[in-house]
Amino acid sequence: MSFNLLKGKRGIIFGALNPDSIAWKVAERAFEEGATVTLTNTPVALRMGETKKLAEKLNTEVIGADATNVDDLNNLFTQSMEVLGGKIDFVLHSIGMSPNVRKERHYSDLDYNYLDKTLDVSAVSFHKVLQTARKLDAINEWGSVVALSYVAAQRTFYGYNDMADAKALLESIARSFGYIYGRERNVRINTVSQSPTITTAGSGVKGFDRLLDFAERMSPLGNATAEECADYCITLFSDLTKKVTMQNLFNDGGFSNMGMSLRALQQYEKGLHQDCNCGPDPDDHMFD
Amino acid sequence: MSFNLLKGKRGIIFGALNPDSIAWKVAERAFEEGATVTLTNTPVALRMGETKKLAEKLNTEVIGADATNVDDLNNLFTQSMEVLGGKIDFVLHSIGMSPNVRKERHYSDLDYNYLDKTLDVSAVSFHKVLQTARKLDAINEWGSVVALSYVAAQRTFYGYNDMADAKALLESIARSFGYIYGRERNVRINTVSQSPTITTAGSGVKGFDRLLDFAERMSPLGNATAEECADYCITLFSDLTKKVTMQNLFNDGGFSNMGMSLRALQQYEKGLHQDCNCGPDPDDHMFD
Amino acid sequence: MSFNLLKGKRGIIFGALNPDSIAWKVAERAFEEGATVTLTNTPVALRMGETKKLAEKLNTEVIGADATNVDDLNNLFTQSMEVLGGKIDFVLHSIGMSPNVRKERHYSDLDYNYLDKTLDVSAVSFHKVLQTARKLDAINEWGSVVALSYVAAQRTFYGYNDMADAKALLESIARSFGYIYGRERNVRINTVSQSPTITTAGSGVKGFDRLLDFAERMSPLGNATAEECADYCITLFSDLTKKVTMQNLFNDGGFSNMGMSLRALQQYEKGLHQDCNCGPDPDDHMFD
Amino acid sequence: MSFNLLKGKRGIIFGALNPDSIAWKVAERAFEEGATVTLTNTPVALRMGETKKLAEKLNTEVIGADATNVDDLNNLFTQSMEVLGGKIDFVLHSIGMSPNVRKERHYSDLDYNYLDKTLDVSAVSFHKVLQTARKLDAINEWGSVVALSYVAAQRTFYGYNDMADAKALLESIARSFGYIYGRERNVRINTVSQSPTITTAGSGVKGFDRLLDFAERMSPLGNATAEECADYCITLFSDLTKKVTMQNLFNDGGFSNMGMSLRALQQYEKGLHQDCNCGPDPDDHMFD
Repeated sequence: MSFNLLKGKRGIIFGALNPDSIAWKVAERAFEEGATVTLTNTPVALRMGETKKLAEKLNTEVIGADATNVDDLNNLFTQSMEVLGGKIDFVLHSIGMSPNVRKERHYSDLDYNYLDKTLDVSAVSFHKVLQTARKLDAINEWGSVVALSYVAAQRTFYGYNDMADAKALLESIARSFGYIYGRERNVRINTVSQSPTITTAGSGVKGFDRLLDFAERMSPLGNATAEECADYCITLFSDLTKKVTMQNLFNDGGFSNMGMSLRALQQYEKGLHQDCNCGPDPDDHMFD
Repeated sequence: MSFNLLKGKRGIIFGALNPDSIAWKVAERAFEEGATVTLTNTPVALRMGETKKLAEKLNTEVIGADATNVDDLNNLFTQSMEVLGGKIDFVLHSIGMSPNVRKERHYSDLDYNYLDKTLDVSAVSFHKVLQTARKLDAINEWGSVVALSYVAAQRTFYGYNDMADAKALLESIARSFGYIYGRERNVRINTVSQSPTITTAGSGVKGFDRLLDFAERMSPLGNATAEECADYCITLFSDLTKKVTMQNLFNDGGFSNMGMSLRALQQYEKGLHQDCNCGPDPDDHMFD
Repeated sequence: MSFNLLKGKRGIIFGALNPDSIAWKVAERAFEEGATVTLTNTPVALRMGETKKLAEKLNTEVIGADATNVDDLNNLFTQSMEVLGGKIDFVLHSIGMSPNVRKERHYSDLDYNYLDKTLDVSAVSFHKVLQTARKLDAINEWGSVVALSYVAAQRTFYGYNDMADAKALLESIARSFGYIYGRERNVRINTVSQSPTITTAGSGVKGFDRLLDFAERMSPLGNATAEECADYCITLFSDLTKKVTMQNLFNDGGFSNMGMSLRALQQYEKGLHQDCNCGPDPDDHMFD
Repeated sequence: MSFNLLKGKRGIIFGALNPDSIAWKVAERAFEEGATVTLTNTPVALRMGETKKLAEKLNTEVIGADATNVDDLNNLFTQSMEVLGGKIDFVLHSIGMSPNVRKERHYSDLDYNYLDKTLDVSAVSFHKVLQTARKLDAINEWGSVVALSYVAAQRTFYGYNDMADAKALLESIARSFGYIYGRERNVRINTVSQSPTITTAGSGVKGFDRLLDFAERMSPLGNATAEECADYCITLFSDLTKKVTMQNLFNDGGFSNMGMSLRALQQYEKGLHQDCNCGPDPDDHMFD
C-alpha cells in the first residue's frame, strides 16, 4: 500500500531499535510513501539493536545521538540535512525509558536520580529535539513533529510507574512548543497516544500481558498494532493534516473513551465466582 | 455531624424518592446543616415513593412538579419561596430516566420517542429549572445549583444506553447556563459525577452489580456512597465554594482518573484462566 | 493534489449546500481521491442551494432526505448502495441548525420546541443515520463515519447558544454508537471539531466575525479552512486511520489547547486603554 | 466565618511567604476552622518572608525545609508530628518557581539546568513530600493532600513558559500517587487549579496584569481570590469530601470552561478598530 503521501519529504526517526519497534514501522512506511529519512538512536541502542539493517533497507544512514544531549542533537540535525539534501519535514520521537521501572522501584519508593533520568530521556529530550531544530531552523514550514505517548498520561495504570508522569510532561511539552513553533514557522507538533504494543520497551512493564488483554477487550476495534500506528503517523506527516497541532491523538481502537465494554466485563465477571478454584498462584508476586 | 454550613439557606431538592435516593440524603444533610428545603417530585413518584415521610421529618412541604413542565416549575419556585420565606440559595437536580433502558431497547435500536423522553426528563429539565428560576429571579446572588451526573458522559459504559447521551447533554447545559447565570447573578452551576450507587433508579441498568464491583475495585478509595455524595453537595451549596462553577466534579473514589488498578486487574485475571469451568451461565442474556 | 487515498470507496455526504459548505469541499476532495459519493440534503436545502451542480460535477446523484426522518434515511442508504454499486465506506454528517439562534432567542429564554428541533436536527439525526445504516448493514467493515463539531461542545462561547448543547450531544452519540458499531462491524465513528468557518450556516451566529478574528489570533497556525477540513476528513475516511474511533479530533490550528496567545493578548490589550475613543457603537446590540 | 470544619485536625502548610500568599490564607483559615498547623518554607524564603509572623499569630512553629530535599522533608514530618501531637491530617503544597522565567529565558531557549530546577521545585517536590510522608506513615487515614496548580497545565498561555510543563507534571503526580496512597491508606490527593492571583510568585510572569484582566472578564464569576482559594481548600481538607481524589479541581470563576465571554470579546473588539490610535507603545517589549 503506497499513496506517495510523503513524496519528496525528509524525515528523522528516533527509536527504531528492531522490527518490533513502532519507530521501525514508521520509518518503513515513510519510505514506502516516498520520503527519505535518517535514523537515530543512542550508541547503546545501536549496539544492541538492528537499526543498521533498517538503514540499509531504506538506503540511508544511521546517525547516533543521545537525545538528552544537545550537542548530539545539533549534529544529528546538521548531518541529516546534509544527507537528505535539505531541511527536515517530519520527525518521530519514539523514546521512553524508566530506570525505576527497570530496577523495579515501586512508585512510592522512587529513586530520584532515576526519576530525573526517566523525565530527561522520555520527555525533556523532546524539548531538546525541538529547541535544537528551531535554533538551527532545521524544519521546513508546515513541517510535522510527532511523539509517541500513552493514555497513562491521563489515567493511572498500576505498574506504569513514573513513565505516566513522563508522558504527561511529554504531552505538555508538545502543547507548549507547538504554540511557539506554530506561530513562528507553522510547524505542527502532536503526540499519538498508542494502544499498549508488544515492543522491547513495552514488555518491561509489569503485568503487561494482562493489561494488553484487558485493553484488547475494552477497545471496540481491538488494540492498534505498530503497523497501524505507523499508518496513522503517515497521515500526520502528510500535507492533509496541516492545521492539526498541539493535540494528543488516540490511536487505540477506542480504548480511551471506553468506561466498560461487554467483552471486558464478561471476562471480569468470570473472576467474580467465589468458588472458582483457578486464580493466580498464591505466590504470584508479579503485581504491585 | 453538623457544621451549620447552610445556616439560614433555603433550598429545593428534586428527586428524593425513598431513603436510598441520593436526593434524600442531600435533603437530610442540608437540613442538618441548618437549611430549610422544599421537596419535589413528579406526581407518579410521589404516589410510589416516600417523599412525604421525608417532608414530615424535615418539617417541610412536598410540592409536586413534573420537571419537564414549565408551568409546574413556575409553581414550584413561587410556592417554595413562599413556604421558605425568601429566595432560594441552592437547588439539587437529581432526575434521570430512560424509557429505552426500561423497555430494554438496545442503543442500536432506540425508539426515538423514548429518546426524546430520556433527553427531556434527564437533561432538558435542568435547563427548564434554570430558565424558570432566572425568569422569576428566584435564586439569590451566589446561589448554587447542582445536578447529578455520571462518568458515562465522558466514556462509554455498555448498558448505560441513551442515559450516557443525556448526561453529556446535562453537563453541557450546566456549562452553558453557568456562564449566563454566573455573569448576571453570580449563581454557580455544577454537576457532580457520582460513583455508581445502589438506588431505585440505578438498579435498572443492566449488569449493574458487576459494574459496581468493577468500579469498587478500580477506585482507590472505593465507590462513593449516597451519604458521601450528600456531604460533597453540602460543600458545593456552602459559601466556601463561591468561585467554583461550570464544572463537572467527580465524587467517585478516584475511578474517573484510573486506567487500571491492581485489584481490578487481579480479579480480571482470574477470568483469563482458560480451563476455568466457572463462567456465566451460557444462557445468561443479561448483557448487551 | 490527489493520492488515490479513497480509490474504490463509496461515500454519502450530508450537507453540501453551496461551495462555501465544508461538506461541498469534502465531496470534491473525496472524488479527487478516487471515491464515488452520493449527495444528500433536505428538500428545502436542495431548493435553496446548489447541490445539484455539485452532483453534476462529481458525476453522481442527489438523494433528498430529511436526516431526522428514518424513512428518508432508509431510502437514502438503499438508493445510495444501488447508485454506487455496493455498501458504503464512509459518511460525512455536516448538519446543524438552531431555530433559537435563527429567531434570536437568548439561551436563557429558549423556546423548548425550538430546542427539540435543534437537538433533533443537529445531534439525534446522527444517531438516526447510524441506526439506519446498521439495521440495513449498509456500511462495510472498517467503514468510517465523521460528523462535524465545534469546541463549544467543551467550552462556552457566548452567542453559540443551544448549538453548544447539540454539539455535546452529537459527540456523545459518536462515542456511544462508536462502541456498538466498532465491536460488531469494525466501523469507526469520530467527530471533527473544526475552526469557526465562514459558511452559510456559521454566519448566523452573533458576533461571528469578531470570534473568527479572535480564533485566528489565538491559534498558532490560524484557523483551519474548509479545504483543510476536507483534507483532514479524507485521512479519516482512508485506511490509514483504521484504529481511530470514538474520538473528537480538533482541526483548528491549535485553538483548543490555547489559553492565551501573544497575538490575541496584544489585540486585547489595545482595547484596555481607557482613553480610547473607539469602542463599539453604544447602540450596538449585536452581543448578548 | 468559622464552621469548625477542621476541628482537631493537624496540617502542614508549604509556601506561606507573606500575607499575599495563598498558603498564608489557607493557614489562617485552617486555624479558624479549628486545625493546628505547622508552617514550612525554604531557608531563603524564611529570611525574605514573614512566615514567622504568621506562626506567632497561629501559635505554632516554622520548620524550615527545602522541599526538594528528602532529609529536610523527613525532619519536617517528624517534627510536625511532635509539635502537633500526632499524625498529619492535611497538607498544602503551594510551591512553584522557574529560574527560566526569572532569568527571562524564552521557552524556545530554555536553560536545561534551570528546567531541571523548575521541575524539581515545582513538581517533583510534591512526589518527595508524598513519598516521605508515606514512608513515615505520617498521614492519618482519610487524610487530604492538596497542591496548587494552574490551567496552563491543560492549555498554553504565552509567557507561562516551563511552569506549564511543571504544572502538568504536578497534576500527573497527584493522580499517580493518589492511586497508591488511596488504596493503601485512604489518603486523598488533589490539585486545585486556581485563577491567576496577585502573589509574589505570580507577579513574575510576563504580561501578568493583562492576563489577569482577560481572565477576570472571561470568568462569569470573575477571578477567584486567594481567600476564596483558602475556603475551597478547607472543604477539601474536611471530612465532607472523603471520596474526592486524583482530581484537578478548578477554582476559577468558570474560566476553564469558557471559550469566549461577551465581556472579554467586547474588550477585545475595541482593539480591532483599525484607526484606533491607542495601542501599546511600539517599544513595549514585555511580550514574547
